[in-house]
Amino acid sequence: MNGGKQTIYFRNKPSVLSGYSIVGPKEAMGPLDPYFHKRLRKDDFGQKSYEKAECKLHMSAISGAIIAAGLSPTDIDVNIGGDLLNQIITSSFSARELDIPFIGMYSACSTFGQALIIGAALIDGGYVRRAACSTSSHFSTAERQYRYPLELGTQMTPTSQWTVTGAGCTILGKAGEGSNIFVESATIGKVIDFGISDANNMGAAMAPAAAQSVLQHLKDTGRDVSYYDYIVTGDLGVYGSRLFLELLESEGVHAAERHKDCGEMIFDKKQRCPQGGSGAGCSSVVFNAYFLYQMRVGSIKRILLVPTGALLSKLSSLQGETIPGIANAVSFVVEE
Amino acid sequence: MNGGKQTIYFRNKPSVLSGYSIVGPKEAMGPLDPYFHKRLRKDDFGQKSYEKAECKLHMSAISGAIIAAGLSPTDIDVNIGGDLLNQIITSSFSARELDIPFIGMYSACSTFGQALIIGAALIDGGYVRRAACSTSSHFSTAERQYRYPLELGTQMTPTSQWTVTGAGCTILGKAGEGSNIFVESATIGKVIDFGISDANNMGAAMAPAAAQSVLQHLKDTGRDVSYYDYIVTGDLGVYGSRLFLELLESEGVHAAERHKDCGEMIFDKKQRCPQGGSGAGCSSVVFNAYFLYQMRVGSIKRILLVPTGALLSKLSSLQGETIPGIANAVSFVVEE
Repeated sequence: MNGGKQTIYFRNKPSVLSGYSIVGPKEAMGPLDPYFHKRLRKDDFGQKSYEKAECKLHMSAISGAIIAAGLSPTDIDVNIGGDLLNQIITSSFSARELDIPFIGMYSACSTFGQALIIGAALIDGGYVRRAACSTSSHFSTAERQYRYPLELGTQMTPTSQWTVTGAGCTILGKAGEGSNIFVESATIGKVIDFGISDANNMGAAMAPAAAQSVLQHLKDTGRDVSYYDYIVTGDLGVYGSRLFLELLESEGVHAAERHKDCGEMIFDKKQRCPQGGSGAGCSSVVFNAYFLYQMRVGSIKRILLVPTGALLSKLSSLQGETIPGIANAVSFVVEE
Repeated sequence: MNGGKQTIYFRNKPSVLSGYSIVGPKEAMGPLDPYFHKRLRKDDFGQKSYEKAECKLHMSAISGAIIAAGLSPTDIDVNIGGDLLNQIITSSFSARELDIPFIGMYSACSTFGQALIIGAALIDGGYVRRAACSTSSHFSTAERQYRYPLELGTQMTPTSQWTVTGAGCTILGKAGEGSNIFVESATIGKVIDFGISDANNMGAAMAPAAAQSVLQHLKDTGRDVSYYDYIVTGDLGVYGSRLFLELLESEGVHAAERHKDCGEMIFDKKQRCPQGGSGAGCSSVVFNAYFLYQMRVGSIKRILLVPTGALLSKLSSLQGETIPGIANAVSFVVEE
């Protein structure tokens, strides 16, 4: 690749024109509440099913981001989107309403990173003017697809995370469109398997992939962790974050002081999900709400956003497969 | 976009270094048998489950294409892959074995088109040296995921197509690597819904999207159908192809003589699937086997490959949703 083994450099400064986040009621009760753009009072969003609710969330995030950028849908050349549902119906059905060319992605909870990388490359290479990069998840659709019927009231295990109900969208555009937040480089993840087979311990399944991507990013770019204000993982949760930092430590990289995890940030300890949040919407709502705000006001200058994904299906687990992980790292810089 | 409303142009001639196709026993009994690179004697490929068999198919296609290009896995910067299974486990689990950065795609049976577009853009933009674009499908994994248990022996309806058991992979590289087959431009599809709700009539669900992408491609490029030797749709089948041609006709575009459908081509009329084949592996095995061969020997100079996808899940159909379609068009040209 043009920036090392797994890393690509963007030469023409594709920039972040806007970001938008919309979350469910539980997320709105968490510590990041002031940063979110819209909060639902009820997580069914007035729809007949949770799947239709997630679809409306996804569409609202895209529309919200387009409006926040002062644009209209005809200004957007492509929507690059994904979600956790089988056949990514949330993103595809959202795209149906939008009349914008659509590229469907799946990289589990790392999808937002992948969408940003492809969006930035298409803009930077001069192929499209602007891209809407969107992902979503919904506690109730994920729970019933991956785990048990909600009506069972199944108890969470101590290592399980709470799927975030929310959707986020980032509009990327060319340099010179008035934004000073740029996508500078990105590291495309490899699928890494450490043999974890507990579907209630995704943090452990994803931590090795996150560590591999971050270490490779630093190697490819010749940077030290201190180059970034923060290394922001997607949804490793409390336990996964600890593993991630230990894996970096073992390679001589001390990142504890500069590490934040969107999954850990989104919920309060009082909210009965001690491991934190997860889901394809987790990193995208936290990035579009909190981190974009901090970069806009100048209190954060450089972050490496590393959405993390656990690659499994109900069937792969039933067939005794382990859970490989993937993590895509995207570097954002603010220039004066 | 740099080539019109939905079309992108590749300026630096990303080229096709190799293609590889591997198919199941039924496909090997069809008229394209002489062109396939490898045929299975049994469709379980010696694996314990059909899902594991599909994964082995997918990996074999990637390895086969890498070897056919005279390369080794370390020469490939990225694998861009997808399939039809929930959470695209086939492609992700293949990528686990490969140690190549992975980008996961989902666009139903149009995934191969999407993978080629992203691969070509990443090479053309100078981000990666080579990309392995791969997709697969398997009759038995698709049947039990989307329809009924195989043991039921459910009869096909007259409009239903037979999911192809097969995997294809194309290695794209930079100009000057010795190939004279180039990816010249591509049209990214929109999600189009004509209100079809019969999950056994995918051809009808996909035909409007195919027509929209082809018409927009011709408009964006200012070309007439006669520019191409063939417009090659993915898996519209017999009935869907008729609809597709009628939709083009109604816009004054006469494509009947230059149209081929991979789904129609792969099976013989005697093979008891009168509508033809379908699946994410359908267009990729037919392209990598038949069309790449014809371009290599110079009997075909220009094709527009249009893999077509029906965007549905079991759940979306149960919730009464219609089936939108998508089609991505990729233009290949042979230069002397």
